[in-house]
Order: sequence, then C-alpha cells, then structure tokens
Amino acid sequence: MTDYDEMLSTVGRHLRPNEIRKLTSLLGRGEVISFAAGAPSAETFPLAELTEIAARVVREHGKFALQYGPTKGSSTLIDSVVSTMQKRGVHSSAAAIILTTGSQQGLDLVSRLLMNAGDVALVELPSYVGGTIALHNAQARLIGVRQDQGGLVLADLRDKLEAAQAAGQRVKCLYTIPNFQNPSGVSLALERRAEIVRLAEAFDFLILEDDPYFELYFDEDRAQRTPLAALNPERVIYLSSFSKVLAPGLRTAWVQAPPALAAKLELLKEGADLSSSVFDQAIVALAVREGLVENRLPMIREFYRVRREAMLTALEQHAPPNARWTKPTGGFFLWMEVAKEIDAKKLLPTAIESGVAYVPGQPFFVDDSGANTLRLAYSKETPEAIATGIARLCSLLHSAA
Amino acid sequence: MTDYDEMLSTVGRHLRPNEIRKLTSLLGRGEVISFAAGAPSAETFPLAELTEIAARVVREHGKFALQYGPTKGSSTLIDSVVSTMQKRGVHSSAAAIILTTGSQQGLDLVSRLLMNAGDVALVELPSYVGGTIALHNAQARLIGVRQDQGGLVLADLRDKLEAAQAAGQRVKCLYTIPNFQNPSGVSLALERRAEIVRLAEAFDFLILEDDPYFELYFDEDRAQRTPLAALNPERVIYLSSFSKVLAPGLRTAWVQAPPALAAKLELLKEGADLSSSVFDQAIVALAVREGLVENRLPMIREFYRVRREAMLTALEQHAPPNARWTKPTGGFFLWMEVAKEIDAKKLLPTAIESGVAYVPGQPFFVDDSGANTLRLAYSKETPEAIATGIARLCSLLHSAA
Repeated sequence: MTDYDEMLSTVGRHLRPNEIRKLTSLLGRGEVISFAAGAPSAETFPLAELTEIAARVVREHGKFALQYGPTKGSSTLIDSVVSTMQKRGVHSSAAAIILTTGSQQGLDLVSRLLMNAGDVALVELPSYVGGTIALHNAQARLIGVRQDQGGLVLADLRDKLEAAQAAGQRVKCLYTIPNFQNPSGVSLALERRAEIVRLAEAFDFLILEDDPYFELYFDEDRAQRTPLAALNPERVIYLSSFSKVLAPGLRTAWVQAPPALAAKLELLKEGADLSSSVFDQAIVALAVREGLVENRLPMIREFYRVRREAMLTALEQHAPPNARWTKPTGGFFLWMEVAKEIDAKKLLPTAIESGVAYVPGQPFFVDDSGANTLRLAYSKETPEAIATGIARLCSLLHSAA
Repeated sequence: MTDYDEMLSTVGRHLRPNEIRKLTSLLGRGEVISFAAGAPSAETFPLAELTEIAARVVREHGKFALQYGPTKGSSTLIDSVVSTMQKRGVHSSAAAIILTTGSQQGLDLVSRLLMNAGDVALVELPSYVGGTIALHNAQARLIGVRQDQGGLVLADLRDKLEAAQAAGQRVKCLYTIPNFQNPSGVSLALERRAEIVRLAEAFDFLILEDDPYFELYFDEDRAQRTPLAALNPERVIYLSSFSKVLAPGLRTAWVQAPPALAAKLELLKEGADLSSSVFDQAIVALAVREGLVENRLPMIREFYRVRREAMLTALEQHAPPNARWTKPTGGFFLWMEVAKEIDAKKLLPTAIESGVAYVPGQPFFVDDSGANTLRLAYSKETPEAIATGIARLCSLLHSAA
C-alpha cells in the first residue's frame, strides 16, 4: 500500500473542504425550498440569445475560438472590461486586466502571488468561503475583522493591524467584498472605503476587492458603491465577473491589478492553465458587444429586488422577536442572527425535513464564531416559495428558541 | 510608489515566463512557415458539428450547462472518460477522475498537491515547458534525466535517484510524457515502462504520466503505448486531454489519480476555480456521446501522418550531413540536433527573416543544455509548406555550420 499522506505537500495535507459547497450540493432536490445555494437564477440566463451567439462563434470564429489563446484572455473582451472598469470610476488599461476562470481563480492566483506561509490576510467576519479557502491554500494566516451594518468596523481593523504589527507579523492584504457582501448582504460605507485605502498606505498592505455584485443594486445610490480601486488603484487588486450578470457556467471573470502585478499574475496563470476557456470568452465578448449584458441589467436587478422584497416582507411577518436580519440593497444574500441558544448547523437537518434549507453562518467566520447565524439567499426561489420557506423557517425558529 | 516586489511571495518572486509561448506568440503571421507552435491544426476542428452541438447545449440544457457545476466536472463526461481509460487498459472509476482546464491545470494542481519547496521532481531532458513550470511554481527542485531513442535512459534515472537519496533529497515524482513526447517526438520503450514502475515502488515516488497524444499514433503497435498507469495505477497520476483530438479552446482535460489523491485534487481545485467551464464540458460530453471524437480519429491521425511524412522526406533530401533527427511514430513533434557550433536560439532571427520558424531546444532542458537542438512541429503547416520550410531551414543550417 502506498502511503499517500506521506507524499503530500504542506498545502496538500491541510486542504479543507468548502463547507458551503458540500452542503449546497446535497440540496436543491425535492420539496425543499432552498435559500442555500448562492447562485444566480437560471431564469436570468438569456438562453435564446446565447444559443444564437454560441453557434455564431463556432461558425464564424471557430478556427480561433476553438484554438489555444493568449493567457491574459481575449483582447476584445479585455477591451470591454477596460470600459466597464472606467464606467465604475476606475482608471484602467489592457495591461491591468487578466481574464480568469471565475473570480475564484483570481482569488487563488492573487493569494499565491502574495502570500508566504504565515503572512497575514485580514478577512471580514463573516467572509466568503471561496476567498478564505484560496488564502488558506496559500498558507496565509487568516485574521477576522468585525463588520456591522456599514461593513468593516474601522476600529477593529486598526486594532488588528496594530496587533499584527506588534507581533511582528506581515499583513499582506485585506480581503473585502464591499458591495452586498456574500454572505452578510451589507455594504461598506463610503467614508469607510476612503479610510481603508488610507490604512493600506499607512500599514503597507494591498486590498483584494471582490466585487461580483456591483451591477446588482436595488437603489440608485451610485457613489455608495465607489470601488476602493477608484480611490487608490495602486493599492487595490479588484475582481469582478460575468457570472452573476450573464451566466456562471461560462466561468468568465477578471482581475484588475496594478500592471506590475498583473504581469506577474499572467505568468502564474500561464503555469496554472495556459488560459481559461477561449470559446467561452469569445461568447461573452460577443454577448457584451451586442449589449446582451448591459440591456438586461434592469430586468435582472428587478428580478432579484422582487425576491429580496418577498423575503423581507415574510421575515417582518413571521420572524421571532429575538431575531435580527440585514436589509441588503443589492446582491443575493440576507444574513440572520437568531436566538443565542440556537445552533444553526444543528438545526439544519430538522429544517430540511420541514422543507426549507439555508446555510449555517459559522463556516463563514474564520474565528469559528457565528453559531447562531445563517445565510439566506433569495436569488433562486420564486417570491411565492420565498414567502412559504420563510414561514416554515420562522415557525422552526419559534419552537427552537 | 508602492514596492510591489516586496509584497510578493517566494513563488511570486521566482516566476519564469514560458519561453516557448513567448516565442510562438510572435509568430504565425506573414510569410513565415512556422514549425514553432505546438498546437493542433484548426483544420481538424469539426466546425459544422460543433456549431450544432453548441447551440443544442444552450437550447436544451442551458439551465444546467450555464449554471455553476460540480468541481470534479460533468458526471456524464467523467463516465465517458472512465470508458476511455479502460479502453487504454487502465482500471478506472469516477472516483479517480477530475476534469481540468486543460492538462496544464492538472499539472499545476498535482504539483501543488505533492511538492514542498526543495522536493525533487525528475523530468525528462528535454521536457515539456508547461510541466516544468508547474513544478517550478510549486518550488520543486527539477533534476533532468537523459533520453535516447527509447525515451528515458534507465541507467541515468537510477543514478539520479541514488544521487538524490545519497544527498538526503526527497524525490516525490517523475514527470514523463511517454508517447510521442513533446518536444522530442520519442516514445518510451515498453520494457522501460515496466522497469520505471518498479523503480517508483523501490524509491517510493509517484509518476506523473502526461499523455495528450495517446490517440495520435501513426502505426498500430498498441502494446508499445501501454500507459504506465495500466502497469501500476497506484503509483501513477495520469493526465490526458480533448485538446488534440477535438479542440484546445474548449480547455477540457482530465486527471486520473488513485482515489485518495483525486479527492485531494478536487479540494485543491475547488479553491483554484470552483470548476472548469461547465458549458464546454457539456459540449465535449455531447460530442463524445455522438461519436464525434472517436469517428474522426482515423482522419486526424492521417492528417498528421501525412505532415510527419512530408517533414521526414524533406529532411532526408535537404539536411546537412551532421544533422540528426527523431522519427516520431505519432504526435506533433520532431526533434533535431545540428552541428555543435550552431546555437539555435541565436540563429532564430535569421531563420525568421528567411521565412521559417522553429523553437530552439534549450528552454526544454532543465540543465540548460541543448543549445544546438530545435523542435520542429509538423502539426500546423500544409505538406507543401513543410517541404518549402524544411528546405529553407536546411539551407540556413548548411551556411551556418
């Protein structure tokens, strides 16, 4: 018998499953109303248009779109991304952009580029598990920073920076999802964004700004969503994606980084996969050029806004008095804190039996807190199912408390 | 000014460009006959059929094929890969297979899974640069093993294993491309395969068997191509791909590993990109099911056989007396050794001016030898262009010697 454990690298020995994905893969069947999966609704996919576009890409551009392509990605699509970034208020250029296989690959490449074993990455409490796993796989030490209704709490951020400094630890980056955060649904207040960028200079760290939900806002307060990259592009590596506004199965996203770092990311990506799908990038490029993303955004925003509304209404109606929840102004998620004595992980099997599923909050906390919290995604169920599901969940919370 | 170098990890500071890709990206334009790019010919892509299949996948399966999918990849395609592996004589199961973004991602994931900084990976002299870069990015120490017309020289392999052992170095793996090797075009002799698998047991290392060209043989001697994974699946991580037999732009490949390691690779891939393109996998799955790969293999083999023939014939006719070259029995590449005083890297600009391009051999050698060698790909030019290009090259070699 071969002893495979003995063969593994340190990274290989410390791999952790993504608890959230493990869980959501068990769901979505049968009678269960699921608030678990953090995915866009397939009802927002433009199937008719993509049928046409996919066929056209093979027929008219197949000799290139089916061949090997540049590591950075399709230059047509990169040009579109540059305009998108500029519309978001961020100075951009083709030299700053790398197309990736979803933002997950961007998180992985950036983590590998920056982190040595033991280097500190500050992350939000709670934070997106895909981000913390990428940092963990680069052997980073993860330190959590508290959030409130306005996102990262600056006093706690300063405390953590000073504590790390005092302990002689190198803080390389802060990982943040400033808009409609996954999992909490809160957004980072504008004045805090400016201060965080100043702290990055003062404490010499980089900001990983993960912004997949930028376009999925439910009100028009654009200034509030100002990317940190717009405030100081030199200190920010910015990630965004076509997954939520077109289709995640095409796995097309981008990283914008200071060009010196983008060039390094390109080299790392060359060794990681040569390039992402050339074909999918050609499809996305054509879809963007034909206005398929831009023109459908109002419909997509309305689609999720109605569902957010349904969830908030049902919660107001049914939630037990000791429960609290966030009021997201965009994105897919709402965060709920329930009675202290309730362990959301332990309650889940009963919930599923009762016909409703959610994600327990604890795996999103790098300090293992949050046992009495849960993430509710309103992105995939109908408004009617959301109302029914929340009623089921709240009835359960009432009896559990 | 931000000092980005100071921000980088050890991996980030030691990234190396893929010399081959740097070079080939400059070529392929104008009047130059290029033997540089190691890519399949776009003439082998089934454009009409894929137009139909891509449209069908969106229209009929879009709600799944455009959504997030499992990290391991499409279960339909995994089932097909399991039969493919069994046809190649390798015991297989779904638990052993992970679909990847090209074999490059497989090489990267496996390298990260196994290698700690300083662990030894033995590689062929010369070897595929994508493989050595993936190992390098995992901070492996690369040690070269000589090849002759029968592939890896066993005496040299034993010497290197014993030397590493004596030096207290941990040899974690041997990276080999046993069939129609990129870049040399040689195949590993059958009796050597059996002995290498025995050495893996004796010296406790794993074999990374990179086999993208398995189906692209020009003669029928099937036993000769027996995968090392067929001889001892417990010691072999096997990689193969749809890039050369369908289309590389779909970036769909697979790793077969002992299930205990496949489960670890899946966890690592989850952090690396969540999954490869779900859409492309659905296309490849349907293409395979409709026989589009299988049925077109005889045509594809003949396509490359004719080009190999054209190159060999032209070399016999024009090559200078001191030149030697391999006679590949499959794949895309032929390897040439020219007069000792010729530096193929220095000669390249003159060659391009004369209207012919190749890849200098040195970047393929981890010991920096091979200045007077070059790789000639016959995969992308017509037989007529091959004849003209070889005549140009040989005339240049005559005057340079």
